[in-house]
Amino acid sequence: MDRKELTEVLAAVEAGALSADEAAARLARAPFEDLGYAKPDLARGMRQGVGEVVYGEGKTASQIEGICRALTEGGQPRVLVTRVDEAKAASLAAALPAFAYRPEARLGIVGGLPAAPGAGRIVVAAAGTSDVPVAEEAAVTAEFLGNDVVRCYDVGVAGIHRLFACADELAQARVVVAVAGMEGALPSVVAGLVACPVVAVPTSVGYGASFGGVTALLAMLNSCASGVSVVNIDNGFGAGYQASLINHLGISPNR
Amino acid sequence: MDRKELTEVLAAVEAGALSADEAAARLARAPFEDLGYAKPDLARGMRQGVGEVVYGEGKTASQIEGICRALTEGGQPRVLVTRVDEAKAASLAAALPAFAYRPEARLGIVGGLPAAPGAGRIVVAAAGTSDVPVAEEAAVTAEFLGNDVVRCYDVGVAGIHRLFACADELAQARVVVAVAGMEGALPSVVAGLVACPVVAVPTSVGYGASFGGVTALLAMLNSCASGVSVVNIDNGFGAGYQASLINHLGISPNR
Amino acid sequence: MDRKELTEVLAAVEAGALSADEAAARLARAPFEDLGYAKPDLARGMRQGVGEVVYGEGKTASQIEGICRALTEGGQPRVLVTRVDEAKAASLAAALPAFAYRPEARLGIVGGLPAAPGAGRIVVAAAGTSDVPVAEEAAVTAEFLGNDVVRCYDVGVAGIHRLFACADELAQARVVVAVAGMEGALPSVVAGLVACPVVAVPTSVGYGASFGGVTALLAMLNSCASGVSVVNIDNGFGAGYQASLINHLGISPNR
Amino acid sequence: MDRKELTEVLAAVEAGALSADEAAARLARAPFEDLGYAKPDLARGMRQGVGEVVYGEGKTASQIEGICRALTEGGQPRVLVTRVDEAKAASLAAALPAFAYRPEARLGIVGGLPAAPGAGRIVVAAAGTSDVPVAEEAAVTAEFLGNDVVRCYDVGVAGIHRLFACADELAQARVVVAVAGMEGALPSVVAGLVACPVVAVPTSVGYGASFGGVTALLAMLNSCASGVSVVNIDNGFGAGYQASLINHLGISPNR
Amino acid sequence: MDRKELTEVLAAVEAGALSADEAAARLARAPFEDLGYAKPDLARGMRQGVGEVVYGEGKTASQIEGICRALTEGGQPRVLVTRVDEAKAASLAAALPAFAYRPEARLGIVGGLPAAPGAGRIVVAAAGTSDVPVAEEAAVTAEFLGNDVVRCYDVGVAGIHRLFACADELAQARVVVAVAGMEGALPSVVAGLVACPVVAVPTSVGYGASFGGVTALLAMLNSCASGVSVVNIDNGFGAGYQASLINHLGISPNR
Amino acid sequence: MDRKELTEVLAAVEAGALSADEAAARLARAPFEDLGYAKPDLARGMRQGVGEVVYGEGKTASQIEGICRALTEGGQPRVLVTRVDEAKAASLAAALPAFAYRPEARLGIVGGLPAAPGAGRIVVAAAGTSDVPVAEEAAVTAEFLGNDVVRCYDVGVAGIHRLFACADELAQARVVVAVAGMEGALPSVVAGLVACPVVAVPTSVGYGASFGGVTALLAMLNSCASGVSVVNIDNGFGAGYQASLINHLGISPNR
Amino acid sequence: MDRKELTEVLAAVEAGALSADEAAARLARAPFEDLGYAKPDLARGMRQGVGEVVYGEGKTASQIEGICRALTEGGQPRVLVTRVDEAKAASLAAALPAFAYRPEARLGIVGGLPAAPGAGRIVVAAAGTSDVPVAEEAAVTAEFLGNDVVRCYDVGVAGIHRLFACADELAQARVVVAVAGMEGALPSVVAGLVACPVVAVPTSVGYGASFGGVTALLAMLNSCASGVSVVNIDNGFGAGYQASLINHLGISPNR
Amino acid sequence: MDRKELTEVLAAVEAGALSADEAAARLARAPFEDLGYAKPDLARGMRQGVGEVVYGEGKTASQIEGICRALTEGGQPRVLVTRVDEAKAASLAAALPAFAYRPEARLGIVGGLPAAPGAGRIVVAAAGTSDVPVAEEAAVTAEFLGNDVVRCYDVGVAGIHRLFACADELAQARVVVAVAGMEGALPSVVAGLVACPVVAVPTSVGYGASFGGVTALLAMLNSCASGVSVVNIDNGFGAGYQASLINHLGISPNR
Repeated sequence: MDRKELTEVLAAVEAGALSADEAAARLARAPFEDLGYAKPDLARGMRQGVGEVVYGEGKTASQIEGICRALTEGGQPRVLVTRVDEAKAASLAAALPAFAYRPEARLGIVGGLPAAPGAGRIVVAAAGTSDVPVAEEAAVTAEFLGNDVVRCYDVGVAGIHRLFACADELAQARVVVAVAGMEGALPSVVAGLVACPVVAVPTSVGYGASFGGVTALLAMLNSCASGVSVVNIDNGFGAGYQASLINHLGISPNR
Repeated sequence: MDRKELTEVLAAVEAGALSADEAAARLARAPFEDLGYAKPDLARGMRQGVGEVVYGEGKTASQIEGICRALTEGGQPRVLVTRVDEAKAASLAAALPAFAYRPEARLGIVGGLPAAPGAGRIVVAAAGTSDVPVAEEAAVTAEFLGNDVVRCYDVGVAGIHRLFACADELAQARVVVAVAGMEGALPSVVAGLVACPVVAVPTSVGYGASFGGVTALLAMLNSCASGVSVVNIDNGFGAGYQASLINHLGISPNR
Repeated sequence: MDRKELTEVLAAVEAGALSADEAAARLARAPFEDLGYAKPDLARGMRQGVGEVVYGEGKTASQIEGICRALTEGGQPRVLVTRVDEAKAASLAAALPAFAYRPEARLGIVGGLPAAPGAGRIVVAAAGTSDVPVAEEAAVTAEFLGNDVVRCYDVGVAGIHRLFACADELAQARVVVAVAGMEGALPSVVAGLVACPVVAVPTSVGYGASFGGVTALLAMLNSCASGVSVVNIDNGFGAGYQASLINHLGISPNR
Repeated sequence: MDRKELTEVLAAVEAGALSADEAAARLARAPFEDLGYAKPDLARGMRQGVGEVVYGEGKTASQIEGICRALTEGGQPRVLVTRVDEAKAASLAAALPAFAYRPEARLGIVGGLPAAPGAGRIVVAAAGTSDVPVAEEAAVTAEFLGNDVVRCYDVGVAGIHRLFACADELAQARVVVAVAGMEGALPSVVAGLVACPVVAVPTSVGYGASFGGVTALLAMLNSCASGVSVVNIDNGFGAGYQASLINHLGISPNR
Repeated sequence: MDRKELTEVLAAVEAGALSADEAAARLARAPFEDLGYAKPDLARGMRQGVGEVVYGEGKTASQIEGICRALTEGGQPRVLVTRVDEAKAASLAAALPAFAYRPEARLGIVGGLPAAPGAGRIVVAAAGTSDVPVAEEAAVTAEFLGNDVVRCYDVGVAGIHRLFACADELAQARVVVAVAGMEGALPSVVAGLVACPVVAVPTSVGYGASFGGVTALLAMLNSCASGVSVVNIDNGFGAGYQASLINHLGISPNR
Repeated sequence: MDRKELTEVLAAVEAGALSADEAAARLARAPFEDLGYAKPDLARGMRQGVGEVVYGEGKTASQIEGICRALTEGGQPRVLVTRVDEAKAASLAAALPAFAYRPEARLGIVGGLPAAPGAGRIVVAAAGTSDVPVAEEAAVTAEFLGNDVVRCYDVGVAGIHRLFACADELAQARVVVAVAGMEGALPSVVAGLVACPVVAVPTSVGYGASFGGVTALLAMLNSCASGVSVVNIDNGFGAGYQASLINHLGISPNR
Repeated sequence: MDRKELTEVLAAVEAGALSADEAAARLARAPFEDLGYAKPDLARGMRQGVGEVVYGEGKTASQIEGICRALTEGGQPRVLVTRVDEAKAASLAAALPAFAYRPEARLGIVGGLPAAPGAGRIVVAAAGTSDVPVAEEAAVTAEFLGNDVVRCYDVGVAGIHRLFACADELAQARVVVAVAGMEGALPSVVAGLVACPVVAVPTSVGYGASFGGVTALLAMLNSCASGVSVVNIDNGFGAGYQASLINHLGISPNR
Repeated sequence: MDRKELTEVLAAVEAGALSADEAAARLARAPFEDLGYAKPDLARGMRQGVGEVVYGEGKTASQIEGICRALTEGGQPRVLVTRVDEAKAASLAAALPAFAYRPEARLGIVGGLPAAPGAGRIVVAAAGTSDVPVAEEAAVTAEFLGNDVVRCYDVGVAGIHRLFACADELAQARVVVAVAGMEGALPSVVAGLVACPVVAVPTSVGYGASFGGVTALLAMLNSCASGVSVVNIDNGFGAGYQASLINHLGISPNR
């Protein structure tokens, strides 16, 4: 609850347009609906510029359905649902006409992608074929949020000429999302080549001492290149979201 | 070495202005000077928009001096040196007239801060008094790189009204650097309040099961709020650098 | 075996009402029944004010049945069984007429909840929808032990206005159980708002670097707010039990 | 900022006694003073019943002095400073006449302990002689907060008859703080003997695979006894504070 | 290959009874049979007093069968096979007439237990019902190796009077095997009560921060009681074997 | 992209045989084919002496098929595919006539093993029967790459005479691959006996505190014997590949 | 407090020789003296056959002195103090005439070693020169407790012939204490050669991934050889104590 | 002790030239001298082609001196001592005339480097200036062992053109030692460029989540490039030794 909203409500009270009790109730209650098991945030779009996103893991299909309905009925035009498996996707598709499933990214989308072409240019680079699902989660998230996305996949550092073949795409990027498992070296090399921010995503690809992505995570946090920040293991959504926030900074210059 | 540089050299060869051997030599040798113990990157400013920064830990004062000289003689107007302790700072101040020390941030600066006011608005928020040295490393780095920085310190979540008192500053930020040790909850709360990217910096402040900052690091990586990416423990420099890259995206719209 | 019991038995021996051998045997043998695979503690209610609770994991349905029978035949009016899955619940319901199952909390209850309204006021707050099963384990345990419980779910710190909407409930709490996965920041924020003890429960909700709840556990142990103590990951039972002990302190003032 | 305060301010606005701008300013600014490096919370006593405590580690003596002055000048009668080493204690004693040092607990106290006898009964039990400093931090904190404290030291489980010799003290406790390093078994045994809550404090006493207290911490979190909750390694202060909150629940029955 | 065997072979060579080449071959080849996938040690009984034991995990039923045949045909009267699941047990029972299965201990036995009563007295104590399978692995192993075993189960420290009820058995033990999961406190308490060696076995019983037995393992390694040594998590076999070696020391006094 | 290739292309440009644009395109594009989900490296054999190997885990059978086709159609005579399970192997065998499966090593081979006998002598030693699958991955990989391989299995250190029986084979080895799980001691003992390099492979064989091979990995990294280097847990392929590189050094003396 | 003592006291009460109150007091109080900071166990020798040992770390010299005085005045003829550094040793030597210091083992001894030759035969084997301090702690402890000790040092597995040169000593051992850092392989090899129990002691010798002895500890817990149990890192005392308990089993056959 | 030596001794016995007792004694005793605290291996050069190397850490200067004397008097012409600090170096230089110190590598050398030029070509590549001490340990070790070494320092992946400038050196290497701290990406990139084995050395350079080199170690173990094997953190000696073994394979073709 930021100070501006507070001031507006207080001004209404001062002007006699609102009683104190009503004001207190409104301030406490307004921005969400209470479903018991969840309190979907109906005002996030207003507050943060991006509508509420639903984390699908650990929720039943009917809980997800209930939250999506609350959000769309509350006026949110499009809803993104992350970490949706095939079974939940089938249930949701049956229950919600506007639901579409992107299996390669495990994402559900209610209300479709934005029609207009996305702004700016985000490059999503992935080190290996096995990293593609996480990379797609990042790429589709960024598209959902209104960005123009270019994919460069299987450009890991063991055959570095493959990365150099993407030099044009990298040179035009405003943000790069760099996705890698195993030793997680891709973001360091990319950050040494570009002049824009790199959002690094470690993946759980690997075995043995990769520890489910911990090695890649640690490597990225210790990057000797400047301009790298990191999200959680396999968090393609988080990287796509952060890249979108960054990309929109220059586009909305009056911020 | 990006494709554009390669094409220019090749064009010169094609035009007869350059022999093949000379071209190969130039491509391999140009962008650095070899001091034996180090190869300062003289072309980083041209390639990445920001000059080479010197990581001071594990280098002797005379090695740092040598690298700074190579960079300034190579044309880099200002050099930032990180993780400089008091003793090295004294040696460097004696050896390099243009050297200044910022002890609260353990930073050395050759050539001074930019004269003109910085662009945009970066807020550096710190959870506690003990986190201030890391926060200062981020703040001074961002100022060195030409940004306008606002500091909000001691705004940890245990007394959340203190954070809300910074609501105006947060609302005007283009990027927030959120610095915290212990349970590292500050970035999650901040990211729920603002609409811009948050760069989270865990610090080694704490004891026992804080494990030198690992707890704060893990908490930040698992933030339930979107729009948070993370740098290494105590890496104030990295956060300030990344925040600067992000902040400059909107300012240089022709990128 | 506390000193008071010892003194009573010794007094009986001194008075000639009990032989020494009988006394030794009684002291060693009395408070449990030996089923071979288990020794249900028939005297716990007398000794600790709360009857024996059965940890259901790693026991077969028939072992649980045997222990429940021994306890109820030994005079314990109600038995709580934790971590009961659906299959064991079905077996137990068939074997024990007084058995009821609470699937949302994975708890089995023999002999029903107390009829009279519970004492005091315990608030169980959960950060997200996925944390609800653990929160329910805490809430139903506390109800079983005779407490009045209020639930505030999906009040995680990323949308902190949802927590503030529970301000009335929090203000009236005598104990708060705060349940969260991921970065586990909820207990810190709650403890900064209330004047009563907070029992924090980390959950295994999350992925990647949440390490099955370890991140939330560590964050809670490092809370910068005072008045937080922590139980094991997903240990809703333990939190409900501890909250009940605390809540009953004021109610039984003659302790 | 709880709803009650908000309602009062709003009522004043509604009554015309306060302008909206003044109200917003008051809500945001009131409860702390801004020293730049710290924002001491002047209203914590009002909000949480216990005044602000100063975490001494990572702060300079002059920062601690400044915070103590701000708090006492802001009306807080007594200030507790934790983790104060000998050198800082000497500086503080020179600067603040009301400062007293308790070296065995590394605590500094401004304004003295409460004159009246403490309420209730808290037992602080420690497993070994090496655990005494942490136990003293808990005990003196509880005394500072107005509790009657009994100490039972060197009662580790390897010679369990020593613990049984404290049976009378344990039987009369309203809360037990159980302090142990190494294998951390004391809280489990104590919680099996008493009917009140146990707050467990792992210490860093030990070597090798004690990992600076991690083993004791993990053992306490996995206690097979009910009624145990845990604080951070060596966090005697946190345990004393939590025990005091619990102990005061029954004493202030109108809560 | 110890020096005594070497000397005997060398003596035979010196006496002309054995050529040098034959001697070298015998020394290198004698004590095992090579099945390609395994080299069963036919001379272990002669060398170490106990025949080869087969670790069943990670071997197919037919590999186990082959090894058992090689050992029994090589003259070993009884073979113990550890970590045999139900399916392998069925295959082995069909293939080897002398095979018997002890499912509660996951042990297979070829050739039966020794007929004569075992020597000495080993007590196997287990903290909880869920620890019984590991305790049985220890107990049956010790019986297989010719020891008299007494079982004391469900004697965990949370109800310490149950352990005291086993005082007679503990007082007569020559070795105690103490088995516990969760916080693993049982061996410390037992070792404080008895005058004989304690072999501690951590189990993977528990959840959350028990980390599959690591907490119990660490607690046992840090026991504040003397006379405790530890084996791997869930290694009931290893504890039973070590207890048997210790128990037989006094019985074979001419060692 | 090494300097020699660069010089050749540049020479062609200088000679007028190649335009600058064509040269840039060739340098960037030549060495791989872009399948979208993968970029098979068609020039690895030329660049590194060994053709591209396909990591089968995390790829679908049809992705593996596509990559194998691209490589063989690109002129690579034989393709090795690692970590292929039974199901993928069946699909690949149906799709690719030249595909053969080695289930004991989880390897797929397109185009068969080299016909001529391998060079040099690599010994693959495995500590136990359960380590054989990883050992076979190493052995078959080395055979695929043109080496003569000798296997010594079940030679773990607990019966060290079995290792000594392989003394002849070890004495003739040019490289030893030493494979072990559990405590991972085999490479240390082997390296103390031989005069050639040892490549150590930890396996995930074990339970409890073996932590899926971490214990063996750490032990091998800490070998007190010189001449040991280590690959990832269960990475039989990597060890076979490295051993082959080493073995071929002496055979191709003009390198 | 074992049942036998309890029965005796009870019998005295039954016979009228003791009042109930006196009996309760005696049972609770008897076996230790309360120094405030410590409760030295005066009856341990009676109860466990070995007198109280003082863990010197984390205690001041004057605390150690007080405990030693209480024990010797309580009738304990000899006192062992572990982990005594040079400074504390000097203080203790000045304060206690009977104090002697063994710097190579960091042990203090009050009252001297037993005069008569020790019983049985314990071999202490150490892998390297750097492990000698821990090995000496084990050896001197065992000598203090009345055992005959043979030392075999620098017999690590990288030059295994040095271990074989100790074959005679190993063959005559009743217990072996095997001490090693780094990869900790010595106990496995020893246990494969001998027929008696091996007590393994990991040391903190090593660097990097030895993690202060954790690697050696884990390796020893995962020994593929039977008959190995393990104590904490650097716990030479614990190993010597356990070896002594084992060794005395056969010597006191009437147990 | 390999079979060849055994056969020779046996042949002497067969021929009557040696008694059996003498043979046994010789086999057990010959290859080392027993100094009590150490058993220097006098036959390692004969057995493994490289003389005994002394690990200097954890040994006193006089112990090192004793071992060096034993080795040189035993006929070893040159001795390498690792991890020698300045103080020990001074003592050794005073005691041993033939001792020389290489402080940049913390190596002591008795008897000098080999006079003749080394064989083959080993490239030692280091990522940063702070990695140079470890790289020098590797380089000087390899020179001591008779190899021709080329150094390429400060060629980390964040400015990858600096690595490419070493393309000629890399192309001529028979082995590469790749040294890096932080994210440890250098070996992966190098192994993708060369056709020879890469020995990777992680260093403890870095801070925070570099965990003293663990991150670099894990990254190197998970290299997506083939042909990489790894040694312990900061183990420059081990890498130089392994590289020398590999390099000499081709040079001594009669092996």
